[in-house]
Amino acid sequence: MRKIDIFDTTLRDGEQSAGINLNTQEKLEIARQLEKYGVSIIEAGFPASSPGDFEAVKQIAGTVKNSIVTGLARSVKSDIETSWEALKGGVQPHLHTFIATSPIHMQYKLNKTPEQVIEIAVESVKLARKYFPLVQWSAEDATRSDRDFLVRIMNEVIKAGATTINIPDTVGYASPIEYGSLFRYLSENVRGIEKVKLSAHCHDDLGLATANTLAAIENGATQIEGTINGIGERAGNVALEEIAVALHIRCDYYQSESGIVLKETKRTSQLVSKLTGVVIQPNKAIVGKNAFAHESGIHQDGMLKNPETYEIITPDLIGDVATELVLGKHSGRHAFFDRAKQMGFQLSDEKLNAAFVAFKKLADRKKEITEEDLFVLLTDQQVQTSEAEVYELESVQVQYGTSNIPTATVQAKTPSGEVEVVSSTGAGSVEAIFNTLEKLVNGKVHIIDYRVSSVSKGRDALGEAVINLSFNDVISTGRNASQDVLEASAKAYLNAINRQIVKAHYQEQREAVAQ
Amino acid sequence: MRKIDIFDTTLRDGEQSAGINLNTQEKLEIARQLEKYGVSIIEAGFPASSPGDFEAVKQIAGTVKNSIVTGLARSVKSDIETSWEALKGGVQPHLHTFIATSPIHMQYKLNKTPEQVIEIAVESVKLARKYFPLVQWSAEDATRSDRDFLVRIMNEVIKAGATTINIPDTVGYASPIEYGSLFRYLSENVRGIEKVKLSAHCHDDLGLATANTLAAIENGATQIEGTINGIGERAGNVALEEIAVALHIRCDYYQSESGIVLKETKRTSQLVSKLTGVVIQPNKAIVGKNAFAHESGIHQDGMLKNPETYEIITPDLIGDVATELVLGKHSGRHAFFDRAKQMGFQLSDEKLNAAFVAFKKLADRKKEITEEDLFVLLTDQQVQTSEAEVYELESVQVQYGTSNIPTATVQAKTPSGEVEVVSSTGAGSVEAIFNTLEKLVNGKVHIIDYRVSSVSKGRDALGEAVINLSFNDVISTGRNASQDVLEASAKAYLNAINRQIVKAHYQEQREAVAQ
Repeated sequence: MRKIDIFDTTLRDGEQSAGINLNTQEKLEIARQLEKYGVSIIEAGFPASSPGDFEAVKQIAGTVKNSIVTGLARSVKSDIETSWEALKGGVQPHLHTFIATSPIHMQYKLNKTPEQVIEIAVESVKLARKYFPLVQWSAEDATRSDRDFLVRIMNEVIKAGATTINIPDTVGYASPIEYGSLFRYLSENVRGIEKVKLSAHCHDDLGLATANTLAAIENGATQIEGTINGIGERAGNVALEEIAVALHIRCDYYQSESGIVLKETKRTSQLVSKLTGVVIQPNKAIVGKNAFAHESGIHQDGMLKNPETYEIITPDLIGDVATELVLGKHSGRHAFFDRAKQMGFQLSDEKLNAAFVAFKKLADRKKEITEEDLFVLLTDQQVQTSEAEVYELESVQVQYGTSNIPTATVQAKTPSGEVEVVSSTGAGSVEAIFNTLEKLVNGKVHIIDYRVSSVSKGRDALGEAVINLSFNDVISTGRNASQDVLEASAKAYLNAINRQIVKAHYQEQREAVAQ
Repeated sequence: MRKIDIFDTTLRDGEQSAGINLNTQEKLEIARQLEKYGVSIIEAGFPASSPGDFEAVKQIAGTVKNSIVTGLARSVKSDIETSWEALKGGVQPHLHTFIATSPIHMQYKLNKTPEQVIEIAVESVKLARKYFPLVQWSAEDATRSDRDFLVRIMNEVIKAGATTINIPDTVGYASPIEYGSLFRYLSENVRGIEKVKLSAHCHDDLGLATANTLAAIENGATQIEGTINGIGERAGNVALEEIAVALHIRCDYYQSESGIVLKETKRTSQLVSKLTGVVIQPNKAIVGKNAFAHESGIHQDGMLKNPETYEIITPDLIGDVATELVLGKHSGRHAFFDRAKQMGFQLSDEKLNAAFVAFKKLADRKKEITEEDLFVLLTDQQVQTSEAEVYELESVQVQYGTSNIPTATVQAKTPSGEVEVVSSTGAGSVEAIFNTLEKLVNGKVHIIDYRVSSVSKGRDALGEAVINLSFNDVISTGRNASQDVLEASAKAYLNAINRQIVKAHYQEQREAVAQ
């Protein structure tokens, strides 16, 4: 069996997609889960792009031990040096640098000749190798590049010291046969290609990311890049869980193994969906809610006679085990702590205590506390930050009637520590809350997207609200899970605002240090 | 350019997936849109499976003129004859019959020898051809069947009169190279294959449905089957919109055309998502909300210099045009009717008037009425049925406060025509409503799934609620779009209950006729 390295870019190519804004704690939590999931490399961010990215990459490089941690850098001296500062604390510092190689990108975006592009690529790889033992070089828009130009530039960057060469299908344009044949051609024509890792990176614009990635593996790729749930720019990157399961289920055909811990699939997928706020459609392969649901009579009849008639993947394989009733109103601190540990959470005593308080409050109102509820509760504690003073909702009340004017009242603590009570009306209950909160936060708020969904089954299930809004023209996404839809909506709104406050606070601190 | 026929099975393989229950009006509306979208064949249902399916297939066959309408039948005399009754009114009656051909299905599910299976297949195709000019025969689980057995049985069913042969990858197991090579093998070895249509039917369990379908086209398929948004059993069928766009964008490579009206893509996708309640994830290829969103600084810079640097598909191509403010409070009846016509709706005068009343009510509360709002409003009118007396919500009021006990009061008309007022409490606002409604409907209700999302942008956007529940152990899904989240939740709950009442009423009527 060949070993295929899995390179996860959920925190870089995934995080840069529309509507996603993860804070450092959330990124760390995802990185820890990716390490458990068994990915070879974690691309933790683009350190030179913002102080927040820099800090997250630095913390992840300092925390993760069993996966290599990398960051993205343009072919620019300052990007590479900033990345070194962020990544040098890692076990095996790794840099990912790139330049575009397609005629359209070189001409319009870079405004450089092919010769100049080769020169820049070589210089940046040489510089990167002064710092990093591992350097990956990517030919952006490779699938629309001239093959022989790719051979030339790769010959040079390998000579300059690149340890991995990546061939992205940046715009999701290739067919599986074309993409496979490009890997075959490069494998046969680039000097020294056998000494480096050869990597595939696919986008799903035409729905072909999974097939293209597998075609690359069939034709010489030894590393593949993608994201959890296939999030990313536009239609997203290839979904890593699809590749991992395909290599497992069809190992007869691909003769390759990924090293992925398949039992962690569902957990990893749920965590990324929860923290990014990106929903997974029910018919999504592997991790969709219906991926294992057999509905038609004919299928159900077959499944009863022999499950293999219609089931090639079992829920058990990916760790999708039935949610059991785990704890209730009378469960004590010890049982709660035990369960958290069993679920793989490593929280500080302080956070565990805070989670226990939240649990008791929930248990007073909700009959059965499921594993899903605990997951939400514990994750929320884990990713909580107290980097700055923010808005805190103390209470919300709403009067709603179809033929009345909906009215909301909110009591909240402001960042300056005062407790304010505000109220307002709206055309609906949630609009009344949003109008009230806009008074509180004292800025121009525009709601871009809003949704609420139940976390588990039952009428008393937790409701998770996700709100994408702009606050004084800056866009952010907030989320909250509470037992009430209206409370969750109010808290998600403030969460979106608070993220901007924390970010601004952080930016100010950094500028103060720089002076 | 080769012509590839598009066979849509949204209403059969799609509708049989978990949590979907479309009524006849909704199915008709989807069929009409599929006809506009330019699909060659619409599989409207499985007539022998239920009276509801029979009726829907019959009405669709009598309505649709520009697409062939078909229905599914097992290899059973009664299935085929029932299907004829449902389909005979169509312009070109077409039947789709099937039997399993893989060793595991023949042994465990059918408990038949391969020889018996051939015999049954031949008999059913012969019987079907007595009625139908067009008969498609499918080898269920073809990709796990013996190739030479497939050749043998296909030789026989073609001799028996089948006009299309379909090779489904029922469990989503094949790789693109395997699936393509199976098509090549059958094309070269089955007698008379050149006289019939050869069809592909792929499932997405490993994320390969799109690639497998395109591989079939590259290797001789002249028809491909799939669903809108890729809905269907488990991980679903291939998404037809991905195939149509891939054939268009890569016509240089595939040299094929589908006849699909690409500008109707977004509308078709939205309609199916709305009526089935199946969400589309933002990173879904072609029809996801972010499919054309460019977020990273590097991409945005490139797009400004030349859009082709990062964009291979334009939103315009698939009819995803920016929503403009179309109507407001002061718009009159004439402007409203005009707009409805422009949007392609063909409503009766009565339904147009009802839609106008709903529009005026909405315009009183909501500043800007967008095309998305109109789409929701008009579709809701179009698919409304008055087949039976049902519950009608007259008003709902809710008292909610974080530290109080949430209380809801509902006034509604029951199926017997009485107006009832009920109230109840709950741990949250929505739970209070659900508890109140459970008193009203007087049965055991369990909530399986619940979600609300905003239809368009802005704090006063319509909220669309979807509820999947069981009522006295029967499962159904209800939906409603209203300006208030609580109202939408209450109406969606009653909509789910009402669907069961309509269905039961229909069943009773049918039984009365049969006696």
